[in-house]
Amino acid sequence: MKIAVDAMGGDHAPRVVVDGAVLAARAYGLEITLVGPEDVVRAELARHKTADLPITIVHAPEVVGMTEHPLAVKQKKANSMLVGARLVKEGRADAFASAGNSGAVMAAALFGLGRIRGIERPALGTIWPASPTPCILLDIGANTDPKPEYLVQFAIMGVAYAERMFGLQHPRVGIVSNGEEAEKGSFLVRDTCPLLQASGLNFIGNVEGKDTTRGIADVIVTDGFTGNVIIKEAEGIASFMSRLVKRELTAGALNKTALVLLIPGLILMLPGLLLLSPTLRRLTKRLDYREIGGAPLLGVDGVVVIGHGRSDARAIQQMIFKAARSAEQGLVPAIQAGLAAWQKATAAAREFPALR
Amino acid sequence: MKIAVDAMGGDHAPRVVVDGAVLAARAYGLEITLVGPEDVVRAELARHKTADLPITIVHAPEVVGMTEHPLAVKQKKANSMLVGARLVKEGRADAFASAGNSGAVMAAALFGLGRIRGIERPALGTIWPASPTPCILLDIGANTDPKPEYLVQFAIMGVAYAERMFGLQHPRVGIVSNGEEAEKGSFLVRDTCPLLQASGLNFIGNVEGKDTTRGIADVIVTDGFTGNVIIKEAEGIASFMSRLVKRELTAGALNKTALVLLIPGLILMLPGLLLLSPTLRRLTKRLDYREIGGAPLLGVDGVVVIGHGRSDARAIQQMIFKAARSAEQGLVPAIQAGLAAWQKATAAAREFPALR
Repeated sequence: MKIAVDAMGGDHAPRVVVDGAVLAARAYGLEITLVGPEDVVRAELARHKTADLPITIVHAPEVVGMTEHPLAVKQKKANSMLVGARLVKEGRADAFASAGNSGAVMAAALFGLGRIRGIERPALGTIWPASPTPCILLDIGANTDPKPEYLVQFAIMGVAYAERMFGLQHPRVGIVSNGEEAEKGSFLVRDTCPLLQASGLNFIGNVEGKDTTRGIADVIVTDGFTGNVIIKEAEGIASFMSRLVKRELTAGALNKTALVLLIPGLILMLPGLLLLSPTLRRLTKRLDYREIGGAPLLGVDGVVVIGHGRSDARAIQQMIFKAARSAEQGLVPAIQAGLAAWQKATAAAREFPALR
Repeated sequence: MKIAVDAMGGDHAPRVVVDGAVLAARAYGLEITLVGPEDVVRAELARHKTADLPITIVHAPEVVGMTEHPLAVKQKKANSMLVGARLVKEGRADAFASAGNSGAVMAAALFGLGRIRGIERPALGTIWPASPTPCILLDIGANTDPKPEYLVQFAIMGVAYAERMFGLQHPRVGIVSNGEEAEKGSFLVRDTCPLLQASGLNFIGNVEGKDTTRGIADVIVTDGFTGNVIIKEAEGIASFMSRLVKRELTAGALNKTALVLLIPGLILMLPGLLLLSPTLRRLTKRLDYREIGGAPLLGVDGVVVIGHGRSDARAIQQMIFKAARSAEQGLVPAIQAGLAAWQKATAAAREFPALR
């Protein structure tokens, strides 16, 4: 399994990307092709002992910055994203991973790989940390105003992902709405529901915002505008809660005294906390984007994973692992098969309306 | 100040509504008119000493249930919501408050009070617990597919609210989008932005999901679909985080031992925690919907506040207080004034395009 990695993608590239690639090569025995300006990448690699690791460099002299317009990938033909995507197209890599400017990675993937035949619009997914079981939420930003048919295709792609990556059979599909009842929803949601009902997928209906984290669906579809608002709102609420606690607790001299008074108790709690530490570590992991390891871009004709711009080396390692696993599990053929089954189901429904 | 209260609205009505009304009458010296089936309300009131309190009953024999279709308010003409809204229309109450079925309360308010002249669609707002300062977020569910012009009117109504209820001058207005950059957004957002720019309001541009809680805008407008998803997502994330912590900590015998080991330390921490307790109480309040006290329905021709269905007596008390304060602060005239200023600004812009 060979993974092409955008050495120049991410807020802390190329350093942490190279660090993460070395970690991934060592941990999973993956072949890694770092894509970027050769001298820059080579200098970063020199900080590591990599003689025994299957890491190669493919030269891409140009870089698309984190804040550049996505279409810059078209002007800078030799940028690391487009070169990386082409490695997959040409069969020289099994997957491509980048923590760069996500709009630009999507554009590069689309230009470099094209769409899977029959897919109208690729969609960006994310593994949503629901409890008890995670789900895949898509689209989180590729299409702000999709048509109902696109949402059905997002569902098909999400199902293929959930089957292959979560090992589920007949994953449950929900659609984000402003109420559980079938009559709730925007025009888009209400137009999409009958199509999902007729799709042959295991469609469970509307899912409210508060239920996205409850594990009631394995695949949750929405338009890229709403999906993006959801993931960023979640980020905002989590940080709001911790900011609030911090600010309230450290306000005023009385509180500072109180916090000092807590120290002896905390020391006495140390043995208990030490025993708990694996659990606490697991907890932080569950809420940590670094462990989630990137968003799959579904619908392009090849495996592409987009990492968080703020990724550190651990997150890059996870992103590379996710890309390798998606390729190994045959994500693209699974989407093609799902698409074919859907086309057959809808064709049958058109010919024999009574079957609907 | 006389507030009409829907005695039959809410999951725990009429009991907690009557309890909350008694609390509000006592705490704020408000006159309260409880609207509902007279015998039922009288029986609940009999549990309290109310001889000295200005609480009256207006008979409304019919009830619209929490799960009924909003249009039930049209069939059951003598329901407590419609009767309550009519009391405001007839000048027999200064505001109406209900913790009932929010769709039905909106319908009753619209039928009973009508819209403010010039307002196309009423919107439901909520006080969003941003930090350092709260903001008003609207629409959170009245209009799933609004036109750009409606969003501008939501902004005007939100500004009137922020001026009167938060005491702000020139409140900052933002619009929810999938990115900060001006080119980001759904068609709706991109069509609305130029209208907000030309509106004469203090428009600061796009606000991402993660920034809604950062206090960067005082008024945040969005369509009712997205707004509803946002508030329910926030609820979901908060409950997900606490569920996760609880489940992980109580899993396994080792963790249970560890938790027992924490007890002596916790005992030692008691003095510090006692000192901190007012702060901890304030913190819980900030995150507690009961303290927020209901969502204002803006754009109907009278003050209407809708409480959370799960409201307890304390939340009902807060809802009644919010309704009284909105009436006292002249919320409806403030919206009318904002609307007139906007109509003047846009008329001038049409006549003298260079001023835009």
